[in-house]
Amino acid sequence: MSDDLFSTPRMTAVFSSESQIRRMLAFEAALARAEAQTGVIPLAAADAIENACRGEAFDVASLVREAALAGTLAIPLVRVLTERVAGEAKRYVHWGATSQDAIDTALVLQMRDGFDLLLADLLAIADACANLAERHRRTPMAGRTLLQQALPITFGLKAARWLDLVSRQIQRLREVRGRTLVVQFGGAAGTLAAVGEGGIRATELLAVELDLAVPNLPWHAERDRIGEVAAALGVLVGGLAKIATDVVLLRQTEVGELTETAVPGKGGSSALPHKRNPIDATMALAAVRLAIGDVPVILGGMIQEHERAAGGWQAEWDALPALFRHTAAAVARLRDAIAGVVVETERMRANLDATGGAIMAEALTVALAVHLGRPDAYRLVQTLTERAQISDTDLRSIAVADEQIRAMLSAEELDRAFDPLTYLGSTDAFIDRALAAYRDVAASNTNAASRSDR
Amino acid sequence: MSDDLFSTPRMTAVFSSESQIRRMLAFEAALARAEAQTGVIPLAAADAIENACRGEAFDVASLVREAALAGTLAIPLVRVLTERVAGEAKRYVHWGATSQDAIDTALVLQMRDGFDLLLADLLAIADACANLAERHRRTPMAGRTLLQQALPITFGLKAARWLDLVSRQIQRLREVRGRTLVVQFGGAAGTLAAVGEGGIRATELLAVELDLAVPNLPWHAERDRIGEVAAALGVLVGGLAKIATDVVLLRQTEVGELTETAVPGKGGSSALPHKRNPIDATMALAAVRLAIGDVPVILGGMIQEHERAAGGWQAEWDALPALFRHTAAAVARLRDAIAGVVVETERMRANLDATGGAIMAEALTVALAVHLGRPDAYRLVQTLTERAQISDTDLRSIAVADEQIRAMLSAEELDRAFDPLTYLGSTDAFIDRALAAYRDVAASNTNAASRSDR
Amino acid sequence: MSDDLFSTPRMTAVFSSESQIRRMLAFEAALARAEAQTGVIPLAAADAIENACRGEAFDVASLVREAALAGTLAIPLVRVLTERVAGEAKRYVHWGATSQDAIDTALVLQMRDGFDLLLADLLAIADACANLAERHRRTPMAGRTLLQQALPITFGLKAARWLDLVSRQIQRLREVRGRTLVVQFGGAAGTLAAVGEGGIRATELLAVELDLAVPNLPWHAERDRIGEVAAALGVLVGGLAKIATDVVLLRQTEVGELTETAVPGKGGSSALPHKRNPIDATMALAAVRLAIGDVPVILGGMIQEHERAAGGWQAEWDALPALFRHTAAAVARLRDAIAGVVVETERMRANLDATGGAIMAEALTVALAVHLGRPDAYRLVQTLTERAQISDTDLRSIAVADEQIRAMLSAEELDRAFDPLTYLGSTDAFIDRALAAYRDVAASNTNAASRSDR
Amino acid sequence: MSDDLFSTPRMTAVFSSESQIRRMLAFEAALARAEAQTGVIPLAAADAIENACRGEAFDVASLVREAALAGTLAIPLVRVLTERVAGEAKRYVHWGATSQDAIDTALVLQMRDGFDLLLADLLAIADACANLAERHRRTPMAGRTLLQQALPITFGLKAARWLDLVSRQIQRLREVRGRTLVVQFGGAAGTLAAVGEGGIRATELLAVELDLAVPNLPWHAERDRIGEVAAALGVLVGGLAKIATDVVLLRQTEVGELTETAVPGKGGSSALPHKRNPIDATMALAAVRLAIGDVPVILGGMIQEHERAAGGWQAEWDALPALFRHTAAAVARLRDAIAGVVVETERMRANLDATGGAIMAEALTVALAVHLGRPDAYRLVQTLTERAQISDTDLRSIAVADEQIRAMLSAEELDRAFDPLTYLGSTDAFIDRALAAYRDVAASNTNAASRSDR
Repeated sequence: MSDDLFSTPRMTAVFSSESQIRRMLAFEAALARAEAQTGVIPLAAADAIENACRGEAFDVASLVREAALAGTLAIPLVRVLTERVAGEAKRYVHWGATSQDAIDTALVLQMRDGFDLLLADLLAIADACANLAERHRRTPMAGRTLLQQALPITFGLKAARWLDLVSRQIQRLREVRGRTLVVQFGGAAGTLAAVGEGGIRATELLAVELDLAVPNLPWHAERDRIGEVAAALGVLVGGLAKIATDVVLLRQTEVGELTETAVPGKGGSSALPHKRNPIDATMALAAVRLAIGDVPVILGGMIQEHERAAGGWQAEWDALPALFRHTAAAVARLRDAIAGVVVETERMRANLDATGGAIMAEALTVALAVHLGRPDAYRLVQTLTERAQISDTDLRSIAVADEQIRAMLSAEELDRAFDPLTYLGSTDAFIDRALAAYRDVAASNTNAASRSDR
Repeated sequence: MSDDLFSTPRMTAVFSSESQIRRMLAFEAALARAEAQTGVIPLAAADAIENACRGEAFDVASLVREAALAGTLAIPLVRVLTERVAGEAKRYVHWGATSQDAIDTALVLQMRDGFDLLLADLLAIADACANLAERHRRTPMAGRTLLQQALPITFGLKAARWLDLVSRQIQRLREVRGRTLVVQFGGAAGTLAAVGEGGIRATELLAVELDLAVPNLPWHAERDRIGEVAAALGVLVGGLAKIATDVVLLRQTEVGELTETAVPGKGGSSALPHKRNPIDATMALAAVRLAIGDVPVILGGMIQEHERAAGGWQAEWDALPALFRHTAAAVARLRDAIAGVVVETERMRANLDATGGAIMAEALTVALAVHLGRPDAYRLVQTLTERAQISDTDLRSIAVADEQIRAMLSAEELDRAFDPLTYLGSTDAFIDRALAAYRDVAASNTNAASRSDR
Repeated sequence: MSDDLFSTPRMTAVFSSESQIRRMLAFEAALARAEAQTGVIPLAAADAIENACRGEAFDVASLVREAALAGTLAIPLVRVLTERVAGEAKRYVHWGATSQDAIDTALVLQMRDGFDLLLADLLAIADACANLAERHRRTPMAGRTLLQQALPITFGLKAARWLDLVSRQIQRLREVRGRTLVVQFGGAAGTLAAVGEGGIRATELLAVELDLAVPNLPWHAERDRIGEVAAALGVLVGGLAKIATDVVLLRQTEVGELTETAVPGKGGSSALPHKRNPIDATMALAAVRLAIGDVPVILGGMIQEHERAAGGWQAEWDALPALFRHTAAAVARLRDAIAGVVVETERMRANLDATGGAIMAEALTVALAVHLGRPDAYRLVQTLTERAQISDTDLRSIAVADEQIRAMLSAEELDRAFDPLTYLGSTDAFIDRALAAYRDVAASNTNAASRSDR
Repeated sequence: MSDDLFSTPRMTAVFSSESQIRRMLAFEAALARAEAQTGVIPLAAADAIENACRGEAFDVASLVREAALAGTLAIPLVRVLTERVAGEAKRYVHWGATSQDAIDTALVLQMRDGFDLLLADLLAIADACANLAERHRRTPMAGRTLLQQALPITFGLKAARWLDLVSRQIQRLREVRGRTLVVQFGGAAGTLAAVGEGGIRATELLAVELDLAVPNLPWHAERDRIGEVAAALGVLVGGLAKIATDVVLLRQTEVGELTETAVPGKGGSSALPHKRNPIDATMALAAVRLAIGDVPVILGGMIQEHERAAGGWQAEWDALPALFRHTAAAVARLRDAIAGVVVETERMRANLDATGGAIMAEALTVALAVHLGRPDAYRLVQTLTERAQISDTDLRSIAVADEQIRAMLSAEELDRAFDPLTYLGSTDAFIDRALAAYRDVAASNTNAASRSDR
């Protein structure tokens, strides 16, 4: 059930056993082709091997069962593949390669697809945030620190901060994608000994076949690229969770600043007819927790022995696909949560007003600071605030009634000091900057997409 | 593929969606029975509900799909179940319960089966260790600290330490099992408001139906019992990994003190015909890493909001089953690794002798300490050891040739000082203690088994 | 600064280098005494060693510097201690022991004090919760699931759930304390070879000296007891975080159901005079995150090599003290947060009423279910709820105006259905159960305290 | 003691309270200067504030104590600073800023110094690896997979793989350094409301003063940059641990391919005079475990509420400095381990020969594959290998005696097949590539260093 609740169907497919086997066969076919081109194996053999790789489906269940015994999927797969290749060519299957070459390269190919799925959803989230930022540029709401109302902001600013966060994640993910998609080919101990002279040339051709980059050396036991992928996804989901947390908190009954368009079968309660739960944001937060839990497993798995690890590498086989699945769920759920969001602007205003002007205390402090300096102004406003709390009146009435204040501020200045829309500082500029950065990110996407189309 | 490589078929079955649904239905049936017995719902309704629960199979795939939308499996399941109940009784399905009541109670039932699978394998490991401890009580080998030969031990002592570790884990797991298998029943906010007066009585009867204990209160958002289960499995796998690490290290080509009975298709290499990889221990170590990674997810998930959490609870749905699966794989793989182990006693002796008596330095120090005191004896032996290293001779020859030493120790005393079997201290007693403790653990198992048979 | 913000002064002291050295010296003194009693070393030597151990203070800074080079504190400490012992006795310092014997036993002694500090604060939290549970037994508030108002509960019930959670943690911690405080004594490879015949007898006497239990075997590389301590603290802080989260959420400006007695210098803002931040609960949550992060380090560190680990053990030296410090901070901060809490009963009632009766939907469903059955009643109430939302009226008015409902329920029954205090189910009984369990826990404390006084 | 064992003195200093306060004062001074330049505050006030910031030392201990109560260091620090500023200027201290602005900017300044310390040590490690790679280019040793001898490599290749790993880490760290060193300035809710019009201009000038970059928006609750730093350090230590693991394994008594130059007081044993423990690599591995444990705390802490978090941010205060300290220890310890390493080339050759030619099985397979094809050749060699194991002869003798083989391979070809130096494939080229990449990394360092000198 986890794969349905904490993944997306497409990401589950990318990291399925079927998909892994298909990519391992792509490696074997490309290897044969590359080795034929460098004269390591006969061209006819390469043709035969490619045909076998592209032939009728392999028995996934049986391969996986054997893999559990062999400790690696490559051994049964190479055996079955070899059986399918006729005659002489049989000799050249998997030539010079080791299990890990096939498994790691397949993983890299899976990661490539995984990245692209994530990036597409992230762009959708960014787009939704950009719309919210623009549309609610002047929708005042309470800014909250330590969950206490602090100062007015606008919902557009909040959305702009979400947007800039997501834009940075997209850039980061693209960079990591660009840096980590390298082929693995080293043979049993990473020397390419069985390939003879042309090892590096064969590696380059193999990489071209698979549209991957060529690393300086095989990286069987140096898993920093995998670690970097894991780390980037960890940072990604951490950022998404910030947004999902805001959504959940703004959806609280007592806050009510966001709601969700109702969908039949979604967010209801088995006992309570009146409830509308923030399902998408909740499931996003659950998926984030799972994803973050996968990260240290992969980082810890980098502690590897000699030329191939006993444990740390194998743990990746479970943890990295899990991380992609959990991340995909977090991204997709947050995308849905943002897409379905209804902004309750009246409630935002009502909450802002509910504190009787207390949230405008800083604005009042600033207005008074011109006359008193910040420290004295701060202390005066603190006194007024306490007086307001004790007497259960609002700060504004207290301020208006205070002679010292009236001596410094005109009625108009006092009005201004208590109007949230006049106390937004650089909010507009910040929103503009986030939108501009997003446009750059969105624009460079077109290029990236066309590049990966080759 | 992960479920095949990093789980066992039986544990995978226990935590499958099918199994979860079956147990949720068991909850619904037992709830109806309990509520009928306390007069909350009519007896006839309970009969009808029980029949529906035990009726033809539910469409698991479709329920799981709906669950992804609803954010909980309980909502579609209760709906489908209600559809299956005819007439009046329909009204009383899931009476007074909330989604989490069904999901949590099902989880507890799954955990019970999970514990029993783990305990059975742990007893098998303990049994194998007990045999090794007894059989190799007097098989000398090098004790190693920081991976350097330190002092002689026997393989029996090493096995006894493994054994005592496993015995403690069995006891710990039994205690946790006894403490955490409690029913969940609280209704929408944990008050049992919809049940009326008889809430606690109904809970007790429900618990009897399911052979579970009754908690003081519902525990929807107080997940310490789940945390305790997770923590116990984390400690368990950490302990198992100690054993698996020893196996991998003793199986190194250059150490060679353990080997493994060859099994076709197991532990071979796709490139290297001569290799015999320690597959079981390696996969156990991988599974351990995965399991430990699940623990902080569950502990962190304990940070829950109000009467039901938004994220922390849902993360459990994936993390706890994953933890049981990964633990099962670790236990089963280690069981196989230990069962198939071949003890190379000659190699153990050869490695012990390979350091030219250096490992007996402490024995020599102790022999000399009677005459010189420990500090001076220690310094003298250190000097001899360095002399041996520089001159590339063995410590024994150096010692025999040293006049100061010959003045203190007779030839016989020197022989004794260099015989590992005379320098084993309390080894025998330690082995006896571990065996005795294991016998207690094994004996109490029979009782536990019969108890759980009711 | 961390030690001030994320620890308590007393826990920092328990795990200071000074304290560690003092306890290592206690080990050395007790070892000498035990070995003298079993005839391993002369009685006069034991006296001299004990005197040296209790003599003038050791130079902590210099020892710690040497420890960094030596890789263990025991080597410089034993050297300095030996220098302080005069004449013959010098020979018998640290006799038969290894570095890890001294370091581990000192750790166990530190853990004992650490447990006692935690237990004292936990009892204070429990006591405060018990008072709240009793005092607010009938103070209605909204129960919230997924942060949405679900059903009425009372604040007393919430406090009772906190209480039961804390009571269980106290019991768990006491059990772990009872099980893990064992002496470490094995010598260089865990055989006690250097002690000769009387190894186990010496261990028993050593344990008596230090008031610790005797393990079956030395446990240099079998760290399950340490893992169990770490796991228990992880479960503990996870539970505390549930309470701290509730406090933070109830303190939100828009919820306002808890506030805090103002303390000068606490919880203010450098910019905002009106703010009162929930500092204690916030810092508790931060400390919890840190503590949970320590747990997998210790569990992962259990993966140990042979007779003494290279890395996993040493990581404990930092992680376990950090875990105790972080846990102490979490416990102490939560204690202060609960102690200073002001319950805003009017606000609780206002929030409950704010949803226009929607929170009483289940009560209405139950009242109607007698006439319609649960499914039809649920559907009817759902329709009314939606009608209320669309027309922005409250559910109660809608219900009162609905003919179908009026046909089934009298005005009195409708009043009842909308009165939170009539729909609390087993709330009272649950509170009683939590209080009773707490009284048991509190009572058994007295015994525990007197036991540990010897 | 942890700070001595699991940090370096310089990194401890960078993240000390003294250092944090100094950098917070640097922020306050630069803020005043920037605000004066944009006309927000008077120039004279800025001068007075700068003087106060650079004045006599602040009472660190007392500030830290107050911080524990206030929940933030900024509040007491701003208070004390304000007290030190005379007259009018007093009003303008901390103008428009919030606690988090000062704390975060100080953190960024600390991180900058932290990065530079790490990079210097990483370059030293890389340099040592480059020397080893060049010097041992043709030193044959066993390549090992799953800790079993697999194929010959050279120690130079192993060092080249370490080198390339470290070079990549240096590049990664430089990129992260370049991307994450941004100023924090947003005021109480991130709008810069109190600064008025010139907020962004003031931010730019502030950034220039501190030589930091300007973010698009304040990032109080969007911690992806901090997450990225944490993730990068996690990847870094994971990579270092791979090297340290190799060192520990190669230093095993039974392998003995690396030893260490003896240093008095280092690596000895309190009980065993003959032991030389791999202290630096061991402590590096311990530090790595601690560092990896810090990463998920920071990633999980990214889950932040609204405009400032209650818990997740505060946890960073402990976790991020701890991560830098632990990473510094890992880097420094590994640097020392590599610097002091002695390569035992004879032992490497002896271990390679010890398997009686079995490690050359693939070379033989390749030689035979020309005649038989890979599958048949593989099977033939497997048969011979088993025959060798059973008869306890070496593979070479078996091969030489086999008629089928003699029919295919000449004596010379057989010699060649069993000579490790002829079966190294692309080893030389791989070493060249790693060295070339390192030279680029080292060269770009000079520029980086000069850039950071301004």
